[in-house]
Amino acid sequence: MQIAGLSFTTTHTDTALRSNTSAPAERRITPTTKGPDILARTRVYIRDIELGGNRFVVIAGPCAIESETQIHDAAALVAAHGAHILRGGAFKARTSPYTFQGLGLDGVKLMREAADRQHMPMITEVLSERDIEGMVDIVDAFQVGSRNMDNTALLKELGQTKKPVLLKRGFAATIKEWLLAAEYIIVGGNDQVVLCERGIRTFSNETRFTLDLAGAVLARQQTHLPVIVDPSHATGNPSLIPALAAATMAAGLDGLMVEVHPDPTVALSDADQALSPELYRGMMEQLHLLATVMGRPLT
Amino acid sequence: MQIAGLSFTTTHTDTALRSNTSAPAERRITPTTKGPDILARTRVYIRDIELGGNRFVVIAGPCAIESETQIHDAAALVAAHGAHILRGGAFKARTSPYTFQGLGLDGVKLMREAADRQHMPMITEVLSERDIEGMVDIVDAFQVGSRNMDNTALLKELGQTKKPVLLKRGFAATIKEWLLAAEYIIVGGNDQVVLCERGIRTFSNETRFTLDLAGAVLARQQTHLPVIVDPSHATGNPSLIPALAAATMAAGLDGLMVEVHPDPTVALSDADQALSPELYRGMMEQLHLLATVMGRPLT
Amino acid sequence: MQIAGLSFTTTHTDTALRSNTSAPAERRITPTTKGPDILARTRVYIRDIELGGNRFVVIAGPCAIESETQIHDAAALVAAHGAHILRGGAFKARTSPYTFQGLGLDGVKLMREAADRQHMPMITEVLSERDIEGMVDIVDAFQVGSRNMDNTALLKELGQTKKPVLLKRGFAATIKEWLLAAEYIIVGGNDQVVLCERGIRTFSNETRFTLDLAGAVLARQQTHLPVIVDPSHATGNPSLIPALAAATMAAGLDGLMVEVHPDPTVALSDADQALSPELYRGMMEQLHLLATVMGRPLT
Amino acid sequence: MQIAGLSFTTTHTDTALRSNTSAPAERRITPTTKGPDILARTRVYIRDIELGGNRFVVIAGPCAIESETQIHDAAALVAAHGAHILRGGAFKARTSPYTFQGLGLDGVKLMREAADRQHMPMITEVLSERDIEGMVDIVDAFQVGSRNMDNTALLKELGQTKKPVLLKRGFAATIKEWLLAAEYIIVGGNDQVVLCERGIRTFSNETRFTLDLAGAVLARQQTHLPVIVDPSHATGNPSLIPALAAATMAAGLDGLMVEVHPDPTVALSDADQALSPELYRGMMEQLHLLATVMGRPLT
Repeated sequence: MQIAGLSFTTTHTDTALRSNTSAPAERRITPTTKGPDILARTRVYIRDIELGGNRFVVIAGPCAIESETQIHDAAALVAAHGAHILRGGAFKARTSPYTFQGLGLDGVKLMREAADRQHMPMITEVLSERDIEGMVDIVDAFQVGSRNMDNTALLKELGQTKKPVLLKRGFAATIKEWLLAAEYIIVGGNDQVVLCERGIRTFSNETRFTLDLAGAVLARQQTHLPVIVDPSHATGNPSLIPALAAATMAAGLDGLMVEVHPDPTVALSDADQALSPELYRGMMEQLHLLATVMGRPLT
Repeated sequence: MQIAGLSFTTTHTDTALRSNTSAPAERRITPTTKGPDILARTRVYIRDIELGGNRFVVIAGPCAIESETQIHDAAALVAAHGAHILRGGAFKARTSPYTFQGLGLDGVKLMREAADRQHMPMITEVLSERDIEGMVDIVDAFQVGSRNMDNTALLKELGQTKKPVLLKRGFAATIKEWLLAAEYIIVGGNDQVVLCERGIRTFSNETRFTLDLAGAVLARQQTHLPVIVDPSHATGNPSLIPALAAATMAAGLDGLMVEVHPDPTVALSDADQALSPELYRGMMEQLHLLATVMGRPLT
Repeated sequence: MQIAGLSFTTTHTDTALRSNTSAPAERRITPTTKGPDILARTRVYIRDIELGGNRFVVIAGPCAIESETQIHDAAALVAAHGAHILRGGAFKARTSPYTFQGLGLDGVKLMREAADRQHMPMITEVLSERDIEGMVDIVDAFQVGSRNMDNTALLKELGQTKKPVLLKRGFAATIKEWLLAAEYIIVGGNDQVVLCERGIRTFSNETRFTLDLAGAVLARQQTHLPVIVDPSHATGNPSLIPALAAATMAAGLDGLMVEVHPDPTVALSDADQALSPELYRGMMEQLHLLATVMGRPLT
Repeated sequence: MQIAGLSFTTTHTDTALRSNTSAPAERRITPTTKGPDILARTRVYIRDIELGGNRFVVIAGPCAIESETQIHDAAALVAAHGAHILRGGAFKARTSPYTFQGLGLDGVKLMREAADRQHMPMITEVLSERDIEGMVDIVDAFQVGSRNMDNTALLKELGQTKKPVLLKRGFAATIKEWLLAAEYIIVGGNDQVVLCERGIRTFSNETRFTLDLAGAVLARQQTHLPVIVDPSHATGNPSLIPALAAATMAAGLDGLMVEVHPDPTVALSDADQALSPELYRGMMEQLHLLATVMGRPLT
């Protein structure tokens, strides 16, 4: 069965009127019991890379695509040390309309070329329903950012595509709300959803957000979708990322998304949070070491 | 000048690349000093109702439009005790795709008739860029809900219309982020923006959210846009709303948005948080009384 | 009955073992129903000043007692514009052991003289069980700060005195935890407890804390103890305090605690958050005006 | 040098008056640079068990000491699978005065016997300055709970003892506040302080608290004190604990504190959060496996 497998279905009682809902009720819930013993976990395929299986998958790349040179250098860097999928932002969700908004569709195309040269699949964020059509034949997967987790119009539209969707947790969303956002994609017929924990907003401001690792483990217990972690946005602090990447693997999660920049000091966006080439290489080496005892190979 | 008047403009430094930005920099910031002494406050007109002026404006109505009878009854009720603008949800932002999603455009039209019969302007929420075109000639104002405050594609599109926009604060947004979301509308050329505080998400779960009244007062100091408060979503508890409505007026804010239902016990959505007719009438009576000493008449 | 009147008593089920508890179970809960219609509200008397009755009580003074001149000037100032009770810190709960820790018992004595000269009662914070004995014959009321709300050893010891206790809400405490902390005092036999909301810690950092006004109103519904508000610590921003003081009265709460300093620019502690004499006078004038329609006179 | 090594010392500017401070300013800050390269980490010795060195230390035991049989069974269980130090609560910090408050000093003595029989050191929580004297010759280390992190009177008094102190992070404390609380102990002359992250209070309520693993790693960067993690209180969910224990080791932290109960179903306190013997054994096995690649042996 290709549905999210939520375990709190008994709370859906206000279904008297359903004028705008097309989801057949009988499709939406797996008959599995709650808890970590969900046997048939969903596999998501971003081209040839499987998430939710044995392999621990690393998605890496720059925060934003800035130029042809930069994205090619970044792609070469992340490929050289074993990342599986290239990430990078072309349409950027910025707090202010006066800051760099990304290169848009031109950026997506630059990224496609850079990924192809490294024989890697690529994923990039989509911000608007209207951009899906132009992107869908270029990208290998769509990313929905934390700020759009509740953009149900966007989620529904992505449910109509056949491309995998990486759904970041809203930074103020509960696990339940996150899984229900995934359902907005799945009810449209697209079950290829990867969940990504990227930090929640709390009083604690010495890291940019608070990485909810326990929440990620809990989410993986409550659904059969793959769950990965983005420590870059969660902390905004590269010196913490290798430790948290190791923790993510040790906690049994399915993968990792990190920001890497060939030269973080000149990045146009989130310059302070990208891994330098040195930190990135060290992180990957430690992951390979851990993989030997965790039974979650990277290759 | 009809722009938001943010006082933290010196932080906008990362503007080297602006490929997707069309905002002329010289338009965006007023030369006013920070603080409560902004002389020229923006007036927003929802048809003939002025917000940001002397009058304390009350926007009231049901959470969702459920039927022709219900919205007419609700409109008659809110009009009878002096509310100025009718609110009601036709497109609903629900956490789950399996709950009532609203009546859609049919609901907007039902609401239009109910508002007209009471000679009131009306406001309703928009969830998708694609719905704007169908709604723009019917509604008097658009509402952007808390979950879409970061939906910049939607905000930009609303900036292209000439209809006022009520922008709710994201429940995990800072004041600065909220004001910058308003800028996404304003840079398009639409300066008719009303800010609405509706509760933030905190550890405190004995109310549904935590009403940040101090934040609303602070926002009003930092911008010349009108700022109102929605205590219904903030608390989810009708017994608290009259006290918080009085507090909103006493704090010098520009108005109030509340949920009222002719019979809350049968509401299809947020049944527990709507004011009953009795609580609503009592609230309005107390506001009239306070208005006599606050210099903010309701009529 | 002189007990806190909690309405969630059915949750106290784990009472099988009570080796360290002396509270007779039958004393602790009033038979009243939940909600705002608790008829017999507890009156707390700080010398001749009644809290929980008709009068809206204002407690004002400097954050810390710094010198004989400063506390006398401050007392004269707060008395001149109608505050009822003098506040001031002698034992200071500071985050760092390297910052000013207060004048200690000498400060308490200086404050006593200043209060007597103005014919006002006084209240000051106690940090340690061991300081109670030295303070109890000097002060008119004890304050327990937000950081000690969970210091049950201190609360129990204060329950053995006959002096009123103003119990601030812990900045990460739920309403239920706050009321149960009050029970720690009350079970010892001292029912003279005033609750004070002073802001909770949230992601929102543009005010120092987030004032939970709705929580204060809710607490007043759930107990018969007086509930007041401290907007000084909640916001750390004097320009917001007059608006929030007016909101506190309009919301039907029992009083206010504010920091006032004869010259905030030279204060040794929390210099940025004290009301200047001008802001304080303006606040009191507005409260007097509101009192005419709220039925909560200040005199 | 035996001091906390904080890196934010330039913010301590309000030191004009120091009447209650005895700390010599020149002692308090190490000359080390900020960051993970603090060479000389402090070693804390709980009897013969070293924290802050190479070994990954596990502290385990029941939430509360309930009876002689229960604590002996628990001590035998935790010793059998390799925990190094016995934990257990005799004085309990409970939210309500009407719930089980612990066995007090009798419980401390029962625990001493149980620990001795297993040749383990023991640690237990202290709630009151007045209890220190009776406990100091029995216990091997004191624990200060999350709710007392700001109880500076208690911290100062513990600084006068020679026994190690495990200082839990307040559940709403910043890293900076936590390190400064440690300074309250250290300035008294006792440098044997272990920091323990145990979850912070956030909006996220699907786990009991939110484990701030990144905060623990950051704290370890900013001080030379040992930093450990308590996933039991952080999550309140035993099924998450083995994954988080592995993550704690992988993140490079110094140890772990967990609640284990011979039969969780009959526990008098926090029954739902203790590890069963089976989960505990599985967790220890996985830690041993990870230790082989992490260079942090358990033995």
